Amino acid sequence: MAIAQPAASTDPAPNPSPGEIVAAAPREAWVAIAASDMLVMDLAPDAAGKPRRVVIQLMPAQFSAGWVSNIRKLAAANWWDGTAIVRVQDNYVVQWGDPDGEDEAKAKPLPDGIAQIPESDYLTVRDREATTWLPAANGSYAPHHGMMAGWPIAWNADHAWPVHCYGMVGVGRNLSPDTGSGAELYTVIGHAPRHLDRNIALVGRVIDGIEHLSSLPRGTGPLGFYEAAEDRTVIRAVRLATDLPPAEQPRFEYLDSKSESFARYADARANRRDAFFNIPAGGADICNIPVTIRKITQ
Amino acid sequence: MAIAQPAASTDPAPNPSPGEIVAAAPREAWVAIAASDMLVMDLAPDAAGKPRRVVIQLMPAQFSAGWVSNIRKLAAANWWDGTAIVRVQDNYVVQWGDPDGEDEAKAKPLPDGIAQIPESDYLTVRDREATTWLPAANGSYAPHHGMMAGWPIAWNADHAWPVHCYGMVGVGRNLSPDTGSGAELYTVIGHAPRHLDRNIALVGRVIDGIEHLSSLPRGTGPLGFYEAAEDRTVIRAVRLATDLPPAEQPRFEYLDSKSESFARYADARANRRDAFFNIPAGGADICNIPVTIRKITQ
Repeated sequence: MAIAQPAASTDPAPNPSPGEIVAAAPREAWVAIAASDMLVMDLAPDAAGKPRRVVIQLMPAQFSAGWVSNIRKLAAANWWDGTAIVRVQDNYVVQWGDPDGEDEAKAKPLPDGIAQIPESDYLTVRDREATTWLPAANGSYAPHHGMMAGWPIAWNADHAWPVHCYGMVGVGRNLSPDTGSGAELYTVIGHAPRHLDRNIALVGRVIDGIEHLSSLPRGTGPLGFYEAAEDRTVIRAVRLATDLPPAEQPRFEYLDSKSESFARYADARANRRDAFFNIPAGGADICNIPVTIRKITQ
Repeated sequence: MAIAQPAASTDPAPNPSPGEIVAAAPREAWVAIAASDMLVMDLAPDAAGKPRRVVIQLMPAQFSAGWVSNIRKLAAANWWDGTAIVRVQDNYVVQWGDPDGEDEAKAKPLPDGIAQIPESDYLTVRDREATTWLPAANGSYAPHHGMMAGWPIAWNADHAWPVHCYGMVGVGRNLSPDTGSGAELYTVIGHAPRHLDRNIALVGRVIDGIEHLSSLPRGTGPLGFYEAAEDRTVIRAVRLATDLPPAEQPRFEYLDSKSESFARYADARANRRDAFFNIPAGGADICNIPVTIRKITQ
């Protein structure tokens, strides 16, 4: 989830950097993200009174559809308003939801219509046609890695699944794999914890404002949970972008993972030949080929 | 660089978690880190007046010896005192040194004896005997990954090199690969930027207090540099631990990467079978098998 860096020039360089390739990508290589696929989370302002807005893109219907459907219902019910960031574990995750969620007597009731999602939904049937294979992006965690509709995924002979890269948003759960509703969410703020793939549902990614989560003070309790209520950051509101007034709706676009520009960008991420680099890596982890997302400014 | 998590029990469980394996490791599997290999960096206290101490373990003589030697001289000369954290780029690095380092007229002079280190020193001749191969830790960036004397490394037929995992500390430089002295340092605070391997010197890792760096506000200038001097965090002092009074010297130990406990820990990181997990990954990125480091308490 790299936000495009400003490039020094859009002239074709002999060995352009990933940022230069992205900056030179043609208009038609960019895909607008639908407002109906974005969640807007407003945290309480920071100590200096500055607003803190986080924008999350929800995954498309190919993946985690049950949880995403629950999340849409929770947002429509304003369910997260007044909940909080409850956990910040360094090099791992930031987690939010109901601070009393583990206490049956005090837990905030979920709105009607929240479904229990079975374990099988961590996997989806592979759709070979929709997948862009990234030859560079091999790794330890699956035989194949690539992009599907702008999302990093892994697959084997039978199934495909989204992967836990930095900024991905997932569903907290208890021991039983069908216990996650979507009310408790987390995002990755460290090295990709790929052992969570296929064990926890991924439902989206932070596309703007992740610094408001990743720079929060680390929790001092076990697993990075905050020990005192006053250490938590209050969530003022979470809304589906379509429920905001049109002028307030965020507008973002991503570089089409099937475009020629993306292929060149991925190759340059795996083989940096721009001025600073002397030895190209010869490959790249899928999480080191983040889908480039930028604000729509025109 | 995982600080050991408290484990629920040290009884052998049928499918122990990585933390349980570490907690059950015998006394002799732990290796004390020499005080002469630790740098202590004290930042200015935080807004609440709390001290912020970061401890860095320097790499052993097998790797990056020229830069590490420079760093020892810089610390002995109190060179970093009054310098600052100048850059915090989300999902990438925190960087510190002389804010005026790029301005020849204003740059702080380096102490005598700082050597220029050649590009060839990014690589070392492979020492097969000293290496613990981790079969689980394959990846995109090198044919082999493993541990040497407690450090994550990669190697090919000719050379070995340390890898850019979370918390590793490296030497900032300009375009020419021999321009890094060790005065400007950075640590990784995001997904391992492995494309930097063999292109920048790694000299150590943060073993305590990384949260004082990783939770700093992100810089708003290009590449995450702070735009205003007052946004920077001042470095009060950096000392080699042996230059501190004995009672103030940090004491840490790491789990011997050649121990049976480490082998079991690495296997459990690659194949989580403890209660929460349903599908073991079947492998692990080298940076997802962090060397376990803990405070010596007795």
